Amino acid sequence: MGANGDGPVDTEEAIMQATYRALCTHGYANLTMQAIADEFDKTKGVIHYHYDTKEALLVAFLEYLLDAFEQHIAVEGDDPVERLETLIDTLLFGPPERTTFDHWELTTAMLEIRSEAPHNAEFRRQWSRNYETVVAMVVAIVEDGIETGVFRDVDPEQVAMLLLVSINGARIYQVTLERDDVAEVTRAGLEAIIHEWLCEDEAETSAR
Amino acid sequence: MGANGDGPVDTEEAIMQATYRALCTHGYANLTMQAIADEFDKTKGVIHYHYDTKEALLVAFLEYLLDAFEQHIAVEGDDPVERLETLIDTLLFGPPERTTFDHWELTTAMLEIRSEAPHNAEFRRQWSRNYETVVAMVVAIVEDGIETGVFRDVDPEQVAMLLLVSINGARIYQVTLERDDVAEVTRAGLEAIIHEWLCEDEAETSAR
Repeated sequence: MGANGDGPVDTEEAIMQATYRALCTHGYANLTMQAIADEFDKTKGVIHYHYDTKEALLVAFLEYLLDAFEQHIAVEGDDPVERLETLIDTLLFGPPERTTFDHWELTTAMLEIRSEAPHNAEFRRQWSRNYETVVAMVVAIVEDGIETGVFRDVDPEQVAMLLLVSINGARIYQVTLERDDVAEVTRAGLEAIIHEWLCEDEAETSAR
Repeated sequence: MGANGDGPVDTEEAIMQATYRALCTHGYANLTMQAIADEFDKTKGVIHYHYDTKEALLVAFLEYLLDAFEQHIAVEGDDPVERLETLIDTLLFGPPERTTFDHWELTTAMLEIRSEAPHNAEFRRQWSRNYETVVAMVVAIVEDGIETGVFRDVDPEQVAMLLLVSINGARIYQVTLERDDVAEVTRAGLEAIIHEWLCEDEAETSAR
């Protein structure tokens, strides 16, 4: 919640949280304005005052989720291996500190909104902006590792994309399959790739 | 279509194809029995005769899609590298021969049904069966590669899962982001991992 009393920012934050709860409870296919209002201590009219249409509300909601997500994945430090591992951990398992949302509940909610993106250009635009933000973070770490001689001379964009598709795929399998080890096994696999392939010294390979 | 005239198998096949067209046209959130009937030369009553509920129809439809998918990914040959590359290509870009469904349209439809899986145990069961079928194919190739000394001594389950989460994540990014190079860049990244890490000789590494 904001610190400005009961102003529009607080109301919008309350609507966003109500939307999140309604999405988790009812799923995307049953996410009506009424279902959102039911999670909210104000009326449907208040929601319509802030958001003209359900689509406008959902666009704002996706932006809200992605902003919250991006705020929690910043990594600091000098060691590119450590920074990369911390980022992988945070993306796969959620930030170490407690946040507003449960990581796997959030993954499920995001999967449902993502499945709408093929039909909605504004959703695709927002997912793309989010992807470019996160991929730039990975590229910066990989470039730093190459410059300092820690990583072999790879294509940073290619490695960053491979990491992000793996993590994205793993999170989606984790919430849609009957097995609960996908994120753990994926982390172990990515660790092996980093230490046995990406790292110049540990891999004991000749330079390409 | 089956070869048995106008019998129940043909009708069910026709209902499955109508469901697919309705899903592609309207999206999962708007996939009603009426929308499916509108894609079909028979009435809604015929659909209800074969499937009691919309959920029963969708469970049958997911099974139909996954069966079609599994039929198209068999790979033959002796060379584990070639078999692995063929499987990756087929999973990322669709089978080389023409099939009933457009690959990216199918990917979009499957993403929408997958997003329902967290709320539906029967969907999770089917996705899991499909995952176990495909992962077993990859594990068999990797094990073969290790036994014949082509691949280094990796954990086959871990490598197979890493491959499949990457491919799954890449297909989903391909249809939900504004960029169209995700599948291509992912293939190039996986090629690098296979030739520079997984292959024993090419990587020029000492055995672990």
